[in-house]
Amino acid sequence: MEKREQLNQLLKEYDAYKALNLKLNMARGKPCKEQLDLSMPMMDVLHSGVNLVCEDGTDCRNYGILGGIDECKRLLGDIIEVPSYNIIIFGNSSLNVMYDSMARSFTHGVMGCEPLSKQGKLKWLCPVPGYDRHFAITEYFGFEMINIPMTPEGPDMDLVEKYVKDPTVKGIWCVPKYSNPDGITYSNKVVKRFAKLKPAAKDFRIYWDNAYSVHHLYEDKQDFLLEILDECKKAGNPDIVYKFTSTSKISFPGSGVAALAASDANIKDIQSQMGVQTIGYDKVNQLRHVLFFKNLEGVKAQMRKHADILRPKFEMVERILEEEVKDIAKWNKPRGGYFISLYVQGVAKEVVQRCKECGVELTPAGATYPYHNDPNNANIRIAPSFPSIEELEKATRILCLAVKIETLKKELGE
Amino acid sequence: MEKREQLNQLLKEYDAYKALNLKLNMARGKPCKEQLDLSMPMMDVLHSGVNLVCEDGTDCRNYGILGGIDECKRLLGDIIEVPSYNIIIFGNSSLNVMYDSMARSFTHGVMGCEPLSKQGKLKWLCPVPGYDRHFAITEYFGFEMINIPMTPEGPDMDLVEKYVKDPTVKGIWCVPKYSNPDGITYSNKVVKRFAKLKPAAKDFRIYWDNAYSVHHLYEDKQDFLLEILDECKKAGNPDIVYKFTSTSKISFPGSGVAALAASDANIKDIQSQMGVQTIGYDKVNQLRHVLFFKNLEGVKAQMRKHADILRPKFEMVERILEEEVKDIAKWNKPRGGYFISLYVQGVAKEVVQRCKECGVELTPAGATYPYHNDPNNANIRIAPSFPSIEELEKATRILCLAVKIETLKKELGE
Repeated sequence: MEKREQLNQLLKEYDAYKALNLKLNMARGKPCKEQLDLSMPMMDVLHSGVNLVCEDGTDCRNYGILGGIDECKRLLGDIIEVPSYNIIIFGNSSLNVMYDSMARSFTHGVMGCEPLSKQGKLKWLCPVPGYDRHFAITEYFGFEMINIPMTPEGPDMDLVEKYVKDPTVKGIWCVPKYSNPDGITYSNKVVKRFAKLKPAAKDFRIYWDNAYSVHHLYEDKQDFLLEILDECKKAGNPDIVYKFTSTSKISFPGSGVAALAASDANIKDIQSQMGVQTIGYDKVNQLRHVLFFKNLEGVKAQMRKHADILRPKFEMVERILEEEVKDIAKWNKPRGGYFISLYVQGVAKEVVQRCKECGVELTPAGATYPYHNDPNNANIRIAPSFPSIEELEKATRILCLAVKIETLKKELGE
Repeated sequence: MEKREQLNQLLKEYDAYKALNLKLNMARGKPCKEQLDLSMPMMDVLHSGVNLVCEDGTDCRNYGILGGIDECKRLLGDIIEVPSYNIIIFGNSSLNVMYDSMARSFTHGVMGCEPLSKQGKLKWLCPVPGYDRHFAITEYFGFEMINIPMTPEGPDMDLVEKYVKDPTVKGIWCVPKYSNPDGITYSNKVVKRFAKLKPAAKDFRIYWDNAYSVHHLYEDKQDFLLEILDECKKAGNPDIVYKFTSTSKISFPGSGVAALAASDANIKDIQSQMGVQTIGYDKVNQLRHVLFFKNLEGVKAQMRKHADILRPKFEMVERILEEEVKDIAKWNKPRGGYFISLYVQGVAKEVVQRCKECGVELTPAGATYPYHNDPNNANIRIAPSFPSIEELEKATRILCLAVKIETLKKELGE
């Protein structure tokens, strides 16, 4: 069959889908209703018959305890493998904690260094593709963002080591496990190279967003990530990293608890400044999480249930991609996290636009790059979690159709 | 009796109290256990059998809705008398919202103006005595804080009007109703003068902390505060004020919801920036508050119960002050709020220290002034809410004893 004829055939198929007036969304890494329902028993652990007192005797309903209740520090600490005294518990959003960390560094500086706002034009390293909301923060604060290509083992460390020699480079974004969007987990070697970094700037910080630490898709095929705080300590570099996490995709995305983990000196620095910002975060919700999950085993049991819901969705998307576009596209097969990262041949924008016109919303092309600028116009982030399996199947078929159409059109020079 | 003899007698009494090894706290405006218990039924309104969907159909458990759910905006809007579309709902702390507003103004500027961080040395007006945590924020951001004396009607507006002619004056702290610590409610005249202010700085903002809007002590003797947003609008000055409130002393101090109210233009400016900071605040807790309180009537009913617990405490403190120190001290008789503001004759520090040595903790003397510097060493903030009535009686007796001792000592030149 001629390419032209092929294209006409595909466009006919596309029009048939279009006539269905679909409204499907694969744009954001949102848990689906069935996942949210898993945590509904958490709504029962606190009721008017429960004494809302935490283990140190504090009434969780009242003011107090700036850094979070001990039992919640232990729970979150266990999730990200750090001691509870190196943890601060915040509100419902780890993104907000990252923003606040950046804002504080801007207005008041990192551990006694001059405020970033007074240091002139600054730079930030951005492994790509990456998380759009990270890049939005560094763009908002006026950093020049520098792309660092991802390898199958993590960011290109040769480049990172080169750039940190520049004292105006103040940090790097990392999603080290089941990365957003590539689903890559940094290798031991990469983590060790991070831990040994010797940046010219004393106030350089690795923003280590461990968003998917326990978010495995397979019980028997899990990625393993070296614990960075410990590696940094061993490397004589304890203060170089802020580690972030939250229960957003463990309990409820809007109503979980977020945490920051860091060295003793960083924790002290941050807590001393936090006291001006607030009297404390929501301890009742912290207690609710502790009573519901109890411990790391409880969290793992919950994550197995999440995986049972998510796994068929990921596998179906991968199967359809395999069936439909394996000769004209590439994608990762993540063992956890929330995304499948699809690479097409320079037609990402066109594919996303074509999907949109057919009622399928995807993350905007380019969103996974600083300044929304994907130099190869190649990467499309697929978020399979939210739609039902039926919707997801339709949406993936349409996506594949769009990839085929746009790739063919490009070949035909249209 | 000789003064010397009097003093010896008082010191004997004091030593008798000291021997009791008391541990009493009148330092912070914290609700007591009985007040917190009033909101325990709020823990029952959400359980695993409830559909956590808000009225626009959004699943409150998931990501989304940056500015808060509509029904919660209406509830908080009714509490502070502004339309729901002029409200943003945040997390658990209005102090945090004030800090964030200041931080945002610092790093990115107010409604298109140059960031405050780039405007050199700036000033902030501080009605005194006032709230220590307010002053901590402006001190942290490096403002020169200017004392504005309080009058029985509110801040000295002649001074305010004079100072705002200085373009480096960027704002003023106000607790306009049942003020902290004086319990003063600003008169209509004062509110109207605020609304008509014509500051030289376009980015001047009134930080109107309406923390005690419905926190009356008496059903039949309530203060009335003119609604400032509306007055500003009428005065052709709609953007000059940020209004803050929270349910901290309505439901649970650690686990309530906070809000900011402002003009359309301010709300738009703030929301556009907030989107970088977070995906949204805890909507499940917002829904919990709405289902528990239902509406303003529900809030008022709750506040009457709070008043029934607080009123006897305030009245007892006032009665003992009247019995013991009426000739050597002054104090306000607030109709609401959380504090009694005591003025002694230049011995505030000494009184607070003497109380401390006897196991009675008070807010540090000076805390109600910027830089902890009470020029008259006169003001002591009494917070009667937290201790039991028995503890409070003892603590107030000791406080009076300390006032008498230190006043006498001063007279004796010791």
